[in-house]
Amino acid sequence: MSELSRNFFLDLDRCDELASFRDEFHLPEDLIYLDGNSLGAMPLSAKQRAIDVVEREWGQDLITSWNKNNWFHLAEKLGDKIARLIGVGLGEVMACDATGINLYKLLAMALDMRPDRKVIVMEGSNFPTDNYTAQGLIKHLDRGHQIRFAEKDDILTAITDDVAVVSLTQVHYKTGHLLDMEEITNKAHEVGALVIWDLCHSAGALAVDLNNCNADFALGCGYKYLNGGPGAPAFIFVARRHQGKAMQPLTGWWGHAAPFAFEKDYRPADNIQQTLTGTQPILSLAVLECGLEIFERADMAKIREKSMNLCDYFIGLVEEHCEEYGLSLATTRHREERGSQVSFQHEKGFAIMQALIASKVVGDFRAPDIIRFGFTPLYTRYVDVWDAVICLKNIMENELWRKPEYNQLTAVT
Amino acid sequence: MSELSRNFFLDLDRCDELASFRDEFHLPEDLIYLDGNSLGAMPLSAKQRAIDVVEREWGQDLITSWNKNNWFHLAEKLGDKIARLIGVGLGEVMACDATGINLYKLLAMALDMRPDRKVIVMEGSNFPTDNYTAQGLIKHLDRGHQIRFAEKDDILTAITDDVAVVSLTQVHYKTGHLLDMEEITNKAHEVGALVIWDLCHSAGALAVDLNNCNADFALGCGYKYLNGGPGAPAFIFVARRHQGKAMQPLTGWWGHAAPFAFEKDYRPADNIQQTLTGTQPILSLAVLECGLEIFERADMAKIREKSMNLCDYFIGLVEEHCEEYGLSLATTRHREERGSQVSFQHEKGFAIMQALIASKVVGDFRAPDIIRFGFTPLYTRYVDVWDAVICLKNIMENELWRKPEYNQLTAVT
Repeated sequence: MSELSRNFFLDLDRCDELASFRDEFHLPEDLIYLDGNSLGAMPLSAKQRAIDVVEREWGQDLITSWNKNNWFHLAEKLGDKIARLIGVGLGEVMACDATGINLYKLLAMALDMRPDRKVIVMEGSNFPTDNYTAQGLIKHLDRGHQIRFAEKDDILTAITDDVAVVSLTQVHYKTGHLLDMEEITNKAHEVGALVIWDLCHSAGALAVDLNNCNADFALGCGYKYLNGGPGAPAFIFVARRHQGKAMQPLTGWWGHAAPFAFEKDYRPADNIQQTLTGTQPILSLAVLECGLEIFERADMAKIREKSMNLCDYFIGLVEEHCEEYGLSLATTRHREERGSQVSFQHEKGFAIMQALIASKVVGDFRAPDIIRFGFTPLYTRYVDVWDAVICLKNIMENELWRKPEYNQLTAVT
Repeated sequence: MSELSRNFFLDLDRCDELASFRDEFHLPEDLIYLDGNSLGAMPLSAKQRAIDVVEREWGQDLITSWNKNNWFHLAEKLGDKIARLIGVGLGEVMACDATGINLYKLLAMALDMRPDRKVIVMEGSNFPTDNYTAQGLIKHLDRGHQIRFAEKDDILTAITDDVAVVSLTQVHYKTGHLLDMEEITNKAHEVGALVIWDLCHSAGALAVDLNNCNADFALGCGYKYLNGGPGAPAFIFVARRHQGKAMQPLTGWWGHAAPFAFEKDYRPADNIQQTLTGTQPILSLAVLECGLEIFERADMAKIREKSMNLCDYFIGLVEEHCEEYGLSLATTRHREERGSQVSFQHEKGFAIMQALIASKVVGDFRAPDIIRFGFTPLYTRYVDVWDAVICLKNIMENELWRKPEYNQLTAVT
């Protein structure tokens, strides 16, 4: 890549069909934000939407908003907007609750549908909250279930005919590797198992095609690539063929077949509504819509193409400019096999990331030694890639990461 | 009450020490809002807080807000603010998730702590989502648990030594009757059972004294009397003596003893933090604080006194002015035995409430025949009681409820 210059990247931005989407986000001046895979940037429309929900819908319309401003149907409406991004149909997704809670519902349903099987296959090295959720569930059920942890290359062989459910995060939170959804789902179905896909690092980052893969269940996050705001509600997908077949255990009145009949006994809705528990945090949910509306005008294929380009350039430039500083690529070089992030390992990773952040290049650190950079094509520019690498080079070359304030492990970013 | 006039109530407002709190809320002009027990009114500070969270904390500070703006500790900080209102200590409450989800956690913990007992005592006629939650849980566990439904006067006799947990809503959502927390908790403990108190209609309405009653667990709602905004996160209380003794099953990373160690296996925190699952909806949670801040300056004893007065006057005036129209009091006359609401039964209740709402007196209807009026002393005036009753009288006297548009049962308020 030695022929490349900053101007080359500026030219790429000038030709980028997605470039204008950046104008729809608020991004602090001079900041290169490569952490949208942890918390997506703020759509400019979010401020007005928040004001409107607080002032008009809550303040002025008060209780009538449940009907007048469609609060009752917001979870479904937003679910339908997410459906397109993950390759499923209307009425198969709800935007609700949090990822861990949605995973709990799905795991419980899946185990219920495979009562004679006791094994859950998971990827032990991925973000641990999914492991924790499964561990909490099986301890609570106390029926001899166990988790079979497998790493990327062993997943297919781990899926044997004693497996009830395969529960995997499609993109690895540290390395960014992308699992083959179709191959794994097929293997699971061959042996009679069900599959839950955690799309936390996929939805909005790449075109997910759940129904084409015949996936059973999925969940994902609203506040990363979907730009829904801090702690925005998550989403949950149940393939239509499974709806009404198993009951999720968090049975609140919103999941009742007739929520306003106030019947004494629970009677589950036979559609996606049964995934709901109770009242949703309307303000957070409403603001999530601002992020989703932007995606309605964006082409996921173009997003994916730009994402792969950004990652490729970043890898290439780091390896060219920072070759001698011991940064080791933790992400695959194969663009089709990774999500929208690039990670490098370095024993001083924590301090390096602190130095980057102090220089206004924001990625994040994942213990013990990963520095992680997320690329969000709706607002990351090609020139950001160049500028970030030059900043990293400066830090490495001058050993700026040695500063004591960058080596205090109390800071969490 | 025949000596009373509108001026009498205006005088009461002039002498009311709580009167100035009304200025801290947005209330639509000419509206008499008696539905704060369903959705509390908007604190004026909520708008600026929402803008600040969206624009500065999310938009500008982005990922650094988790530390810089204290997002990680918001659930605990707000929990501590709620603690005072329900008579418990710091570190015993978290503001998080939704009521049904928090009830699920507590029921699971309680059953786990009483493994040899199979009975849950509940009040069948109360708001059914609590029943649904318990039904979902015991179906899921499939260990022979059963719910013993008892009504108010039979609760004590239903608490026998086969009972694992008594799970009750302190104030009945329809009739407003207030259960005797101390007596019931004592009886439960005598037979070795645990108690969960659902404070949805109590917190912020009356001084709850959980620790004085030696209560085990509690949960409640942020969006009714606490004025936290639509679907605001709920709260959960675990008495300190029970913390670390049982694991709640929704085990996400926020409940881990070391959430940022990203350990593969779940290891529960041994304090109130273990009630957390994962990332909370920060915007909704932050705005809940606006409602709680108002309570920091309000005296719960005065709130309770005014609440009882408002209810007494309302009952007296309805019975005086609407005597001949067949409205039958569904709430007790004993002020100490009710929450902060008054309900009347009438076979045309639905249409009567629609007519009231059209006349800008907002209460709500609960099937089959209850019209319900909530009194929220922070912003309900004494004169509102007078004006609401005069409006009701006009509707009954002139049979305005007969209008066809008030009899279309599709409307839900």
